[in-house]
Amino acid sequence: MHKEAESKLKKLINDPLKVPDEEVEGFVKAFSSYVRKLEGARVVVRKDAPILGKVGILVGGGSGHEPFWFGFTGRGMYDAVVVGEIFSSPTPDAAYKATKAINGGKGVLYLLGNYEGDKMNLGISKQMAEAEGIPIEIVNVTDDVASAPKDRIQDRRGIAGNIFAIKIAGAKAERGGSLGEVKAAALKANSNIRTMGVALSPCIIPSTGGPNFTLAEDEMEVGMGIHGEPGIERTKLKSANEVAEILTRKVVEDLPFKADDRVVVLLNGLGGTPLQELFILFRKIEEILTCMKIELYKVYIGNYCTSIDMMGCSMSLMRLDDELKELFDEPADTPYFKMYPVQKVKP
Amino acid sequence: MHKEAESKLKKLINDPLKVPDEEVEGFVKAFSSYVRKLEGARVVVRKDAPILGKVGILVGGGSGHEPFWFGFTGRGMYDAVVVGEIFSSPTPDAAYKATKAINGGKGVLYLLGNYEGDKMNLGISKQMAEAEGIPIEIVNVTDDVASAPKDRIQDRRGIAGNIFAIKIAGAKAERGGSLGEVKAAALKANSNIRTMGVALSPCIIPSTGGPNFTLAEDEMEVGMGIHGEPGIERTKLKSANEVAEILTRKVVEDLPFKADDRVVVLLNGLGGTPLQELFILFRKIEEILTCMKIELYKVYIGNYCTSIDMMGCSMSLMRLDDELKELFDEPADTPYFKMYPVQKVKP
Repeated sequence: MHKEAESKLKKLINDPLKVPDEEVEGFVKAFSSYVRKLEGARVVVRKDAPILGKVGILVGGGSGHEPFWFGFTGRGMYDAVVVGEIFSSPTPDAAYKATKAINGGKGVLYLLGNYEGDKMNLGISKQMAEAEGIPIEIVNVTDDVASAPKDRIQDRRGIAGNIFAIKIAGAKAERGGSLGEVKAAALKANSNIRTMGVALSPCIIPSTGGPNFTLAEDEMEVGMGIHGEPGIERTKLKSANEVAEILTRKVVEDLPFKADDRVVVLLNGLGGTPLQELFILFRKIEEILTCMKIELYKVYIGNYCTSIDMMGCSMSLMRLDDELKELFDEPADTPYFKMYPVQKVKP
Repeated sequence: MHKEAESKLKKLINDPLKVPDEEVEGFVKAFSSYVRKLEGARVVVRKDAPILGKVGILVGGGSGHEPFWFGFTGRGMYDAVVVGEIFSSPTPDAAYKATKAINGGKGVLYLLGNYEGDKMNLGISKQMAEAEGIPIEIVNVTDDVASAPKDRIQDRRGIAGNIFAIKIAGAKAERGGSLGEVKAAALKANSNIRTMGVALSPCIIPSTGGPNFTLAEDEMEVGMGIHGEPGIERTKLKSANEVAEILTRKVVEDLPFKADDRVVVLLNGLGGTPLQELFILFRKIEEILTCMKIELYKVYIGNYCTSIDMMGCSMSLMRLDDELKELFDEPADTPYFKMYPVQKVKP
């Protein structure tokens, strides 16, 4: 029995071409206390949008990264998400509808992943909204250290570390920040976030029933993107400790993170890697970071930004100064990310 | 390329025989603000255990179900978890150490999955603890409707629905309930929970590098257990809507759930099924339940109780009366399950 051949047939779906629409329908039905869907567009907005006096935050990109994008819609994170087909950009029209639905009078920040299609289509939406007097700012997250060298940092792709940028911008908006302040918070977060991934298998695309690339049985690809974009090195499969070392060193060197830095960590599964393997990886990641005297403030491990059922993971760090720490700790309540309110100790 | 053959080699691990130990180490490092590990035993306890005046709750079973078991350790859920090797029972000695570590003077409830090995080993631990004057009660969760007919309900296995029983018992203990009251709450929850699963693939066991059973490329097995125990029917793969219908009908008929019942829903992934497929399944589940006038109070969708990287899912319902609803809504704060405190509206 060949699991991949099997996978071509073995998806719990109805129609391969309706996956994005049907999954959004199901998501909205499940979490109707948090979100609603806009009529006639693949857009999910938080239920109480627009919130008067709050900067709106819009995120978006292709489907296939669940629970990213729409799973984190809600208080403390973002107001709207617009998703395209699998690994494809959303349409300008949908983004424009989303923008209108969440504008509470202070403008809207688009927090994107720095992919050409998204930038183009959301750029059109920006023009449409601005023509109606809605101020729009765009921040492109560029956390993937493997996607371009450091001297072309503006060309890097946004991947799982985007969640940290969202958390920071979301908190700033929730606190009443202006559009400029929310944009500045997102940019500051982005400049402190670095991510690196490794893929052990392709994913199976519903519409084709096949894999999006090939890897030999004993190979892995370091630095592969979440849509199968080429990485920086294809090697023989290594042990968890070796993979942890590669990811951690690359991420740490890039910023660079240094002794006495305080960081939050996201060890993100790409969909097909069991959680037990992520825990085993983290065991070594923690050892390396602790040895470098980098302080781990909070840790997240699980499937946050997937590539359908790809085997592999990514590791993200965000360095926290006092401002970023305070914003990171602000409460958030969404279907797939909750920041529990800090308990105030009575005097 | 054959994904299954690949999977034999393609795990991010160090030593196949050390998977349970290393994953627990990594978990405890990641979530040290919630939990600590006991010396010399594969036991995770909440950091502030024992809590004086609170009934302790201990859960346990084999590894391989991550984030079940240890991911839900903490306030509002349970105090200790003891795990064995992959799909194998924990030892009596470890369970006994866990019991001692969480006894706050009001005794300890063992909330188990009704597997023979667990019952035997935890039974020995119970005797050891009772010999020292620690009162112990045992509740075996029996939510899997496919594992035995209704007239042998006591033979049924506990699977993902256990999380709901834990939530209820955990809340009762947190509120100061006696050992008898916490046991009664767990039993009441169990009698209102039903689960049914479907498997599309085996999982790959690290120690053998191979699958734990075989399924043809176009087959699925309805009612399969989370360790690969045989289900009730092997059929050709069906559409998401058909699978949703099978699972929902079987679960609903068994209790039976009726019009005007209020339920919580857990649509649980077994590890290898992408979240987007669960959302598509839920779209139909919601339609069926709503059509039956069953009220969906809260919905959980994701990997809660997995079988490493098995493809498939299970669907659980728990019927809520006023008492169960109140207990379900009590706050909980653990690494992988958070019940956000209900916001009190100022008068």
